Amino acid sequence: MVPASLTVLPVSGLPEIARGADLASMIAGAVALAEGDVVVVTQKIVSKAEGRMVEIDPADPVAKRRLAESEAVRVLRRRGELVVTETRHGYVCANSGIDLSNVAEGTAALLPEDPDRSARRIRDGLRARTGRLVAVVISDTFGRAWRRGVVDVAIGCAGIRGIVDLRGSRDALGRELVATEMCLVDEIAGAAELVMGKASGVPVAVVRGVDPSALGEGSVIGEVVRPYAEDLFR
Amino acid sequence: MVPASLTVLPVSGLPEIARGADLASMIAGAVALAEGDVVVVTQKIVSKAEGRMVEIDPADPVAKRRLAESEAVRVLRRRGELVVTETRHGYVCANSGIDLSNVAEGTAALLPEDPDRSARRIRDGLRARTGRLVAVVISDTFGRAWRRGVVDVAIGCAGIRGIVDLRGSRDALGRELVATEMCLVDEIAGAAELVMGKASGVPVAVVRGVDPSALGEGSVIGEVVRPYAEDLFR
Repeated sequence: MVPASLTVLPVSGLPEIARGADLASMIAGAVALAEGDVVVVTQKIVSKAEGRMVEIDPADPVAKRRLAESEAVRVLRRRGELVVTETRHGYVCANSGIDLSNVAEGTAALLPEDPDRSARRIRDGLRARTGRLVAVVISDTFGRAWRRGVVDVAIGCAGIRGIVDLRGSRDALGRELVATEMCLVDEIAGAAELVMGKASGVPVAVVRGVDPSALGEGSVIGEVVRPYAEDLFR
Repeated sequence: MVPASLTVLPVSGLPEIARGADLASMIAGAVALAEGDVVVVTQKIVSKAEGRMVEIDPADPVAKRRLAESEAVRVLRRRGELVVTETRHGYVCANSGIDLSNVAEGTAALLPEDPDRSARRIRDGLRARTGRLVAVVISDTFGRAWRRGVVDVAIGCAGIRGIVDLRGSRDALGRELVATEMCLVDEIAGAAELVMGKASGVPVAVVRGVDPSALGEGSVIGEVVRPYAEDLFR
């Protein structure tokens, strides 16, 4: 089987997102979706639509760190103003995922309460508006323990599996692959970021051509987040 | 600025790769490249072409672990047959990146000695054969500390920067972004994997439409590998 090519389309022209905004309706109006598309939505507009903005004193140098700690179940490391935390969802990331860029001065965006649920809502809304069954990935920008630079990863998903298990598949030489559990949703989130850019104000992208065998019910929190007990590095 | 769309094309039809194979020539014969394309080549065929195959006793349950330890400068964690190591390149990964799938029975593929150099060679070869300046990323499949499942990341690059520094760019609301160092090469490696699959025998993909400002001289080992002294989790 030779897979087909993949296309990543930026979705631009969305208005500034306010609390209560109907993201599915806005996305459906901005791009023609096809069955099996994966719609990647950046966390920030989800947080804005869900009213996850809080006030923060821009003159207080420790306000962000205090807010990050209040959003964490565990502080793993500190360095200067950076704290690496475990959020209540189980994500390990800088500053509990709190973000001060692309939001109004004096406010900060918290992560959605349940990004898998956010993804399901948008997926259901897109289906209602377009008649098409698509998958949705909510993405955010995370650092990595051993690699410099940040990448976009999935913090929530719907209509696509968080982990695709290739156990039992055969490699190209016909031997069974012992364990290759691919995290396609993270690769999809990163692919979407390539057409978004951090500074260009493109908060949604469509990834078209994802292997249909990856589609189905899925969850980032349930499948991708590594439980504390399984962790070798926390 | 609204970025254009991105396309990821699988490159199939390459022959089985033997030691000394001229990968650039094979790739140039299998796909029509355009200026600015990023050609993603999986580590395994680079290791095969560079003769990085070693014999391993398939009946010896600890042979792989011993080989992994011999390829490591540091063993970080052990769990059962898995060792998480730091390779001499500085990558932190499972089993020093040694792989037994898609290779002949009784052999194992070691990582290339210098994957940035491997990428430069392929880039130079593609330029000589096609007249086109393209970028090359060597990819491999790595686990992550806090997320389940594996993803493809870059272990070497040429003609593209390992980290793209958006410091000084402005966000969509006009404020300066303090520090957003994106690791596009990892996102590109992951995007390529979406058309490769672990079991489908597609070892090369072309990512077309990457922001030209990311192109230029780059290095994974020099830019992306986090030095031990900077590391909070080793």
